[in-house]
Amino acid sequence: MGKRAARSDVRERFGFAVKSRREELELTQEDLADKAGIHRTYLSDVERGTRNLSLLNIERLAVALTISMAKLFEAVEAQ
Amino acid sequence: MGKRAARSDVRERFGFAVKSRREELELTQEDLADKAGIHRTYLSDVERGTRNLSLLNIERLAVALTISMAKLFEAVEAQ
Repeated sequence: MGKRAARSDVRERFGFAVKSRREELELTQEDLADKAGIHRTYLSDVERGTRNLSLLNIERLAVALTISMAKLFEAVEAQ
Repeated sequence: MGKRAARSDVRERFGFAVKSRREELELTQEDLADKAGIHRTYLSDVERGTRNLSLLNIERLAVALTISMAKLFEAVEAQ
């Protein structure tokens, strides 16, 4: 459970986890952005790891991805 | 794993999880703020649930609390 040094920036790892889960659900970026109530360009930035998104948007994305935040961060930390 | 409706605002639940873990480690707010490299007043706001903190600060806090982000969010979602 000890936190190891990050392999890459947490924003990039988070973006990759979001994209992987979205693809697992066979959703387009547009589908997911609509479900989460965010802009598609914002989601695109998130997936590219250029957004330092906040708790409220993390929760929105997790809800839209039908995954708990804990599971989403497990995927972030497994990278 | 399906995400249920939040019992209270995620910011409040996050703040409570941080405070609980800090107390478990017997750290003062000042100790934890120093370890995480953030201001004590910012940490105080986080614990009171009034900060919509971002990925980078979530990671910093998790590292300072010697807990994975996944475990921290498990505590958030268990509330």
